[in-house]
Amino acid sequence: MRLLRVGAAGAERPAMLDGDGVLRDLSGVIADVDPAFLAGGGPAEIPAGLPVLDADGLRIGPPVARIGKIVCIGLNYHDHAAETGAAAPAEPVVFMKAPDTVVGAYDDVLIPRGSVKTDWEVELAVIIGRTAAYLDSAEQAKEHIAGYAVVHDVSERAFQLERGGQWDKGKNCATFNPLGPWLVTADEVPDPQNLGLRLRVNGEVRQTGSTKDMIFGVYEVVRYLSQFMTLHPGDVINTGTPAGVALGQPEPKPYLRPGDVVELEIDGLGRQRQTFRAA
Amino acid sequence: MRLLRVGAAGAERPAMLDGDGVLRDLSGVIADVDPAFLAGGGPAEIPAGLPVLDADGLRIGPPVARIGKIVCIGLNYHDHAAETGAAAPAEPVVFMKAPDTVVGAYDDVLIPRGSVKTDWEVELAVIIGRTAAYLDSAEQAKEHIAGYAVVHDVSERAFQLERGGQWDKGKNCATFNPLGPWLVTADEVPDPQNLGLRLRVNGEVRQTGSTKDMIFGVYEVVRYLSQFMTLHPGDVINTGTPAGVALGQPEPKPYLRPGDVVELEIDGLGRQRQTFRAA
Repeated sequence: MRLLRVGAAGAERPAMLDGDGVLRDLSGVIADVDPAFLAGGGPAEIPAGLPVLDADGLRIGPPVARIGKIVCIGLNYHDHAAETGAAAPAEPVVFMKAPDTVVGAYDDVLIPRGSVKTDWEVELAVIIGRTAAYLDSAEQAKEHIAGYAVVHDVSERAFQLERGGQWDKGKNCATFNPLGPWLVTADEVPDPQNLGLRLRVNGEVRQTGSTKDMIFGVYEVVRYLSQFMTLHPGDVINTGTPAGVALGQPEPKPYLRPGDVVELEIDGLGRQRQTFRAA
Repeated sequence: MRLLRVGAAGAERPAMLDGDGVLRDLSGVIADVDPAFLAGGGPAEIPAGLPVLDADGLRIGPPVARIGKIVCIGLNYHDHAAETGAAAPAEPVVFMKAPDTVVGAYDDVLIPRGSVKTDWEVELAVIIGRTAAYLDSAEQAKEHIAGYAVVHDVSERAFQLERGGQWDKGKNCATFNPLGPWLVTADEVPDPQNLGLRLRVNGEVRQTGSTKDMIFGVYEVVRYLSQFMTLHPGDVINTGTPAGVALGQPEPKPYLRPGDVVELEIDGLGRQRQTFRAA
């Protein structure tokens, strides 16, 4: 099932794409695609014959409301670790983004004032469906995942790496986490380690990868994180990006500028497209 | 004004301490001490003659509901930077805690499984009242602060410093951010840079400091952060800890063990007391 939220920012309603790709209104059935819905194992309860929505001109918002936290895995693809000059990590590198960085898949992204190194990162997002703490095995983690989505882990490399201390400083700028367009429920993603990811900037292919090249797979990431923090329904995990980011290019590195258009896609999870603008 | 939230976890009601220290029910006046209330400049609207609450046995929850993000400043006291062996940072070190780490001032704190280096940190918390983005001056930041509270920035040093990568891994364990007991509105804290902080472990004084020794003052921290992220009403800033943490002691460092009791206080902002237990 493909779940989404449509309408003006802050006033989205829940919707779904049916098997024929028709957009249908879920607002008469569920309050929202939110932690309570995800925790309730809700998708199975949705009836047939829902009202059709006119998709023309309708904004697509983030597919999850009231996200509790966004946990991010750094350097989680062999080729990306190599391009940044880092060794493959011995265990997952973890940093955080605030939920207020989340926008829809087609919303504009703002280049922060003073930024000269705004960079792209296509990633597979995991959305938690059941509370996870101290999981014993990666296999067990599977039951705690509600679904998957495309996420753009936008990053400002000077803020992240050159301004003293922790990466979070370059990861939490407003609009820096476009999510969606859809949440695809986990039952429709039998193997999350076999998904192609692609990202283009102004039509030029910059990233092409596969989740099979992750250093730490999705289930292991969930198990690992659950040793350090409690994962709650509606939490999101950005699982890392493959090679091809601007940071990994030769000088002059092609960091994003106002007017640039970035398109992202992951097999089966849909496409994003953002225009970058000055904040 | 001293605002608080009382009742069972997840079912707190808003309350206040009046000028005589009497606990009064605010639930007939406001929905909650939450971002909407803080953004509305609410405290001025509270009438006299509110119902008195019986404080006996009543749990005190976190003083703010629906916190959007917790931004933390590292190494922000000269003496603490020195005890950790770090140079005083040239600009603020920033990391993040998830809002789901917040508990009440007297709630138990859980020592994570596998932890051997759980540490204490008394800190001044700033609660945002007005959206702040790209502030021009530290003076301007003052108008964006709703109030202040005591916060315990509990940390697991092995997770933070020895497990690869970013500090967030040792900062986001469940229950790791006791907040309160009260939010003291900013009008009652004319000089946030002249507050004494103290922390005791099992009755022994471990931290005694003053916010006058901050490297980056409260207003400058708000101005600085607003260049990298948008601060929203209900966001919390943990502004750093003075010297005296376990990490800074000679071996064997006195990290926290189940049964340990930690008491914290800041001038005018009340006291906390937590018993540490095994997760």
